Amino acid sequence: MSNKRPNRGSGDAPFVAGNGLIHRRALLGRGILFAGAMGTGAGAALTSAAAEPLAIDPWSLSPGIAIPPYERPSKYENNVVRTLTNPNNEARGSAARTPHHLLNGTITPNGLHFVVARGGFPDIDPDKHRLLIHGLVKQPMVYTLDALHRFPMVSRIVFVECAGNSAPLYSREPIQANVQALHGMASCAEWTGVRLSTLLEETGVDPKAKWFIAEGADLPSMNRSIPLAKAMDDAMIALYQNGERISPSNGYPMRLLLPGYEGNMNVKWLHRIKLVEAPVMAINETKQYTELLPSGKAWQFFFPQEVKSFITRPSPGLTLKGPGFYEISGLAYSGNGPINKVEVSADGGKSWALAALDAPVLSKSFTRFRMPWNWNGQPAILQSRATDEAGNVQPTRAALVAERGESKAVPPVTAVLAGHINAITSWATNSNGEVSHVYA
Amino acid sequence: MSNKRPNRGSGDAPFVAGNGLIHRRALLGRGILFAGAMGTGAGAALTSAAAEPLAIDPWSLSPGIAIPPYERPSKYENNVVRTLTNPNNEARGSAARTPHHLLNGTITPNGLHFVVARGGFPDIDPDKHRLLIHGLVKQPMVYTLDALHRFPMVSRIVFVECAGNSAPLYSREPIQANVQALHGMASCAEWTGVRLSTLLEETGVDPKAKWFIAEGADLPSMNRSIPLAKAMDDAMIALYQNGERISPSNGYPMRLLLPGYEGNMNVKWLHRIKLVEAPVMAINETKQYTELLPSGKAWQFFFPQEVKSFITRPSPGLTLKGPGFYEISGLAYSGNGPINKVEVSADGGKSWALAALDAPVLSKSFTRFRMPWNWNGQPAILQSRATDEAGNVQPTRAALVAERGESKAVPPVTAVLAGHINAITSWATNSNGEVSHVYA
Repeated sequence: MSNKRPNRGSGDAPFVAGNGLIHRRALLGRGILFAGAMGTGAGAALTSAAAEPLAIDPWSLSPGIAIPPYERPSKYENNVVRTLTNPNNEARGSAARTPHHLLNGTITPNGLHFVVARGGFPDIDPDKHRLLIHGLVKQPMVYTLDALHRFPMVSRIVFVECAGNSAPLYSREPIQANVQALHGMASCAEWTGVRLSTLLEETGVDPKAKWFIAEGADLPSMNRSIPLAKAMDDAMIALYQNGERISPSNGYPMRLLLPGYEGNMNVKWLHRIKLVEAPVMAINETKQYTELLPSGKAWQFFFPQEVKSFITRPSPGLTLKGPGFYEISGLAYSGNGPINKVEVSADGGKSWALAALDAPVLSKSFTRFRMPWNWNGQPAILQSRATDEAGNVQPTRAALVAERGESKAVPPVTAVLAGHINAITSWATNSNGEVSHVYA
Repeated sequence: MSNKRPNRGSGDAPFVAGNGLIHRRALLGRGILFAGAMGTGAGAALTSAAAEPLAIDPWSLSPGIAIPPYERPSKYENNVVRTLTNPNNEARGSAARTPHHLLNGTITPNGLHFVVARGGFPDIDPDKHRLLIHGLVKQPMVYTLDALHRFPMVSRIVFVECAGNSAPLYSREPIQANVQALHGMASCAEWTGVRLSTLLEETGVDPKAKWFIAEGADLPSMNRSIPLAKAMDDAMIALYQNGERISPSNGYPMRLLLPGYEGNMNVKWLHRIKLVEAPVMAINETKQYTELLPSGKAWQFFFPQEVKSFITRPSPGLTLKGPGFYEISGLAYSGNGPINKVEVSADGGKSWALAALDAPVLSKSFTRFRMPWNWNGQPAILQSRATDEAGNVQPTRAALVAERGESKAVPPVTAVLAGHINAITSWATNSNGEVSHVYA
């Protein structure tokens, strides 16, 4: 264990940027850092309470609760749920957002993976479901789930993000909402399935084919056009999500997975793939998911989700309890590949420090970043800024809206159909430790 | 995409070992492999059924089912559950086993993570739970969950395995059971928490301390002695499992995580850590979890789980449906570090071929291996053999029992307290495609 004490700031603590950011390796070898040098400390020191025998908690006196065949989280975690835009399943779209402020790590558990759907989820009998591959192929084929299980599979940890995630940041005024409402339409899981290229080996491909259309078995027959090159790269027919069969609202029994591409293209409840010469020009690529720019031009086919990060802790609703040490932590990801670095600022972007990244840092996956911080009890503005390996840097909100425009009206946080915003998010903490969303 | 067609075997197919094992990159660029060259094919070729419009499935005619706040797997997956040894929670130990034959990938979903407990799970109120660190420290400390959340955390994907996993392989005759019954007491998750070394920085450590005792808040006050070196290495106070707070029966609200060490040392419902000079000699390190060898000597402190692998598909209960292509897939792991390679045999160990490993291959984590196989419809014996980066090789069952002894009686598959067996598992397929457990 290293005993080095990097000290790039003033005073006794090894500050690396303004307003209390601490070198990420400074905690090793410093001894009694939290209780002593840092002031209040996070735990409570004991002088005599460690005497034995210890007091016995009531739950230690019972044989406990039966282990169930399929386990759910503790009843004390009943608030750790997705927020729903359409809980009564009315005849309109619905979204369910991931509670990032209450999670940690990089895997989103299946129960909490975000959902955007044009209705509810279809009640598909997996034994009767079929996947058809046709169009510009040499031999059309139809696959049952059993048949797909005979093919070579691959597992990969990949994020999926709705193109409309973070859309509230287009608002002229910062919407007062938490990280779940602002950024909850991105999640990350280990997906397992058959590469689409493997199936196309079997069907053969007509050289005229340049795109494929993926269509779901939901009521609106959600469909999208995707360049054939993605099929030959890393597109997957996903059958498993975090080890078990994929969730009903994430496409059970199968979905298209296009690592890094915007969420709606990862067609759920997938039942056919048709190879074609040109895009189908579906509603989701003309009316929706097309970004009109101030110049009057529009981005119509906007595939990889751009590099983004946001701080999950502290964040609105998680109040700091007095000055002292905290960990600033959040998520970073890019549809273009692995994250190269995440910088954190505690002074609204005046100075930045490199955050630690939990290993492994995977391409097109969530990366968890962590930054030690000694809060002095004064107002602070926390930001994170991610850079991916391709060199793309997350822009400030001001730079992004200057390029792409700003909503004149304040959109509701339920809006999902305007998006592609990857700007830096700013959290302000006041002297009471309360955290709010600001533009800075 | 590579067009190379490795052909290291005889004939047209690129066989790499006996009885139909195929080179793992042979599927690229071969075209119509499954339907054509390989015989029956996995899918069904269509000549006219691809005509549009397609038939509409009944579930595509309904607006679907409401998206819930916390989602469970599809009702069609109700058989994907843990098997329980004590479903009525009688006054004895209980185990719940992971259904590996029905899963894929490397992450075990929290609902299906294995459990071994000396009773049920305690009903712990997280706001009232405390972690005490005392004994040979400079300053005893007590931590609430809120306090622990201020400390630097780390996330890591790690397997946990019961020392008694795979114990049925000690039986003189091969027990007819599936992979869940034989190997279901190992699971893998992303765990997030505070390194124990970080907390010991705060308490300080008396130089006389050489071990620590970890104790749980369950009724039996489960405790174990662990070398202090592990605390200073990678031991973690885990608070999150696959992103959400850890499962009730896996230690909610906190457990000790000792990556690679035998399961029972990863004390659940952790409420104190006491630094001491020598092991406490708890029941779990004298009566239980100590392996008596034929020599009369015993292994008492047996920490890292040895390198192991097993095939999950095909496996007993998953019947092959006619000759042709299949993927052989399974899990490999080692408590000593990353997996270096996994070899697969389809002829009972006479010849071996290298399996593909899904990336990333992480230290002390499940690694998924995959091997393409063309089954000729004749009886075959499937085996996998893992080697870790330290060079440890999974032994044959014969070699292992020669060293460690063999049970005279056939143990029930519910036995959990004899273990440390990492021998190669053999599955025999008969000409009907049925798979059974054999010694070979």
